[in-house]
Amino acid sequence: MKVAVYRKAQFNSAHRLFRKDWSFEKNNEVFGLCNNPNWHGHNYKLEVKVVGEIDPETGYVIDLKILNDIIQDEILERFDHKNLNMDTVEFKDLNPTGENIVVVVYNIIRTKLDARYELSVKLWETDRNFFEYPA
Amino acid sequence: MKVAVYRKAQFNSAHRLFRKDWSFEKNNEVFGLCNNPNWHGHNYKLEVKVVGEIDPETGYVIDLKILNDIIQDEILERFDHKNLNMDTVEFKDLNPTGENIVVVVYNIIRTKLDARYELSVKLWETDRNFFEYPA
Amino acid sequence: MKVAVYRKAQFNSAHRLFRKDWSFEKNNEVFGLCNNPNWHGHNYKLEVKVVGEIDPETGYVIDLKILNDIIQDEILERFDHKNLNMDTVEFKDLNPTGENIVVVVYNIIRTKLDARYELSVKLWETDRNFFEYPA
Amino acid sequence: MKVAVYRKAQFNSAHRLFRKDWSFEKNNEVFGLCNNPNWHGHNYKLEVKVVGEIDPETGYVIDLKILNDIIQDEILERFDHKNLNMDTVEFKDLNPTGENIVVVVYNIIRTKLDARYELSVKLWETDRNFFEYPA
Amino acid sequence: MKVAVYRKAQFNSAHRLFRKDWSFEKNNEVFGLCNNPNWHGHNYKLEVKVVGEIDPETGYVIDLKILNDIIQDEILERFDHKNLNMDTVEFKDLNPTGENIVVVVYNIIRTKLDARYELSVKLWETDRNFFEYPA
Amino acid sequence: MKVAVYRKAQFNSAHRLFRKDWSFEKNNEVFGLCNNPNWHGHNYKLEVKVVGEIDPETGYVIDLKILNDIIQDEILERFDHKNLNMDTVEFKDLNPTGENIVVVVYNIIRTKLDARYELSVKLWETDRNFFEYPA
Repeated sequence: MKVAVYRKAQFNSAHRLFRKDWSFEKNNEVFGLCNNPNWHGHNYKLEVKVVGEIDPETGYVIDLKILNDIIQDEILERFDHKNLNMDTVEFKDLNPTGENIVVVVYNIIRTKLDARYELSVKLWETDRNFFEYPA
Repeated sequence: MKVAVYRKAQFNSAHRLFRKDWSFEKNNEVFGLCNNPNWHGHNYKLEVKVVGEIDPETGYVIDLKILNDIIQDEILERFDHKNLNMDTVEFKDLNPTGENIVVVVYNIIRTKLDARYELSVKLWETDRNFFEYPA
Repeated sequence: MKVAVYRKAQFNSAHRLFRKDWSFEKNNEVFGLCNNPNWHGHNYKLEVKVVGEIDPETGYVIDLKILNDIIQDEILERFDHKNLNMDTVEFKDLNPTGENIVVVVYNIIRTKLDARYELSVKLWETDRNFFEYPA
Repeated sequence: MKVAVYRKAQFNSAHRLFRKDWSFEKNNEVFGLCNNPNWHGHNYKLEVKVVGEIDPETGYVIDLKILNDIIQDEILERFDHKNLNMDTVEFKDLNPTGENIVVVVYNIIRTKLDARYELSVKLWETDRNFFEYPA
Repeated sequence: MKVAVYRKAQFNSAHRLFRKDWSFEKNNEVFGLCNNPNWHGHNYKLEVKVVGEIDPETGYVIDLKILNDIIQDEILERFDHKNLNMDTVEFKDLNPTGENIVVVVYNIIRTKLDARYELSVKLWETDRNFFEYPA
Repeated sequence: MKVAVYRKAQFNSAHRLFRKDWSFEKNNEVFGLCNNPNWHGHNYKLEVKVVGEIDPETGYVIDLKILNDIIQDEILERFDHKNLNMDTVEFKDLNPTGENIVVVVYNIIRTKLDARYELSVKLWETDRNFFEYPA
């Protein structure tokens, strides 16, 4: 009797999409406005989904306070009010596309979450563009 | 060629998270503010998902009026403007966590829905905390 | 050059609409389901609007952290995860309708806010029913 | 390492639910208000989900500009500000229920999308009634 | 001590923007896609705002059930699942722009609402285009 | 018979809150995380409100296409996918707080809008913090 539990959060970051080993023109061609060398930014919205059995004693799959603490300490502390390319080790050499961010967020939370839970993460870059891992 | 059909609804209820067989202190430790003995409440939002084949004659998987009537008669009649712990048989001895509520809602609708349909239910306790069954 | 600054928040409470000096029947006639003697509840959403001049030094009308602290300390501490009728002095003898709640919230914040600011408050009881004071 | 990429869009159309081979009474019985012979309409919201591997060079599953162009050229050009029953070949002889529309939209996008991608489509007829294919 | 009370509703209609006394070309030039002779449609969202004194006995400005009944009986009955141009007397000779619809809705509700209340109406044609009267 | 017409838009930008003539410590004390020297960013949402008389010929207060073109050409071209502090003349020496941005946006649109219209602008920095000018 597995139930999914969801928790939402938000972080506000600057980023730039580009490859250091490409020319500015090549980056512009592939990444368009997102290649602005002075950065732009987003309100990234996050939805973390944790699947597990209901604990018959508490009626919880996971205490949402615990899940929220993980999101707060591991994701928001790291990425909120930061420049993803400049201020984080995760995106120092990894292009901070929505796809790469959602995988990085998943991997960070995965290491903090008990192995008995299944995990997936959804990330909104804007209201119209968003990403999910695993698919 | 299976299609999913979704219908949303809302009910406004009071509840308290606690176990009768635990001390007040133990309940506070586990359930925090949700253990307020005088209750608190939520606008619970519900999303019911029904999966089936499209009827080639009508173009419907299920007449949404029928699905809405089930939600209205079986869920809203039972839980809307109620105290989940005091006014319902379902949560008399079951802690009304989001996890337990979403399973109870699923089980009620399941008995009213033709067996050829697959069913799942999503329940929002707040905009940031929600639940889904089956996961 | 007055600018309005808005901050949103939420509190989850139980309440009952009724008058102690009316019969149960009279209360039912006027307040319907909201007169459930065992309470029901809502996710109350709050939007606080503060109007003032931009401080030319900071570019702020008011530091939103200060406004948020007032909302947190004066409103959420008081009403969140509470039974409005039983747990608060404000609604001990005042029917906790949306209209009365929005006026009470306004009056509390007004005493904590520098007199040079204009204030108004909006309160959602549900997504479809909400209230504003002053109008 | 498959990631899902989502893109949202909207089109505003008129439609009528009915079968030409049924009497007006029979259509009314089955389709109710949706059988209004003078049409009614909706803001249809669309969410297109594309699943694939992240391209390690770009960090993209698919350039969202390409996905957006497909939605624009193939779906919005065809259905936006149209009468689905009268102005489109797709619904000339197919009842434009949410179920049928979501399958038609899927089939159109499927032919334009590289075969290495998985696709699914969600369609909102209103905020409370929506549809997904495949389920 | 005036408080504003808000109620939201929705109706789904077909319409066409054009003037009978203009050529098709002139209508196209001014109204673009909205001049489709076979109609298109919208989910019109409505927000009705009523301002008045709180009744000290009930704590209500107006019983929202009464306001909702007016919206239901006078606006939704008239416009929901209708073709505004063909099925209504109001827009038989009046172009159903958002501006004209919001004024018509205001005028209808105004006649049904006690004169001691102030009224205003907001109408969403889409999430990005909306209208309010009086301004 | 004045009607308000609203149009929404969005731009995604990087920014930093600070004063060049203050020490880093002073800036941190006043602007907190928003003083990150490597920038952070937001999805800024914009709501432009134009008030005027309905043109009896067209039924429009203003052709929303014209209003949208102004927003597109004057605001989004200037600020979308930009670093507000580095890439714009408007915020070269003006702290890009929500308050200052909303006034700047207002002033730009005001010069492009016929004088017979009243104008006001609302700007969301996040879903919970927003700004309006004039108040």
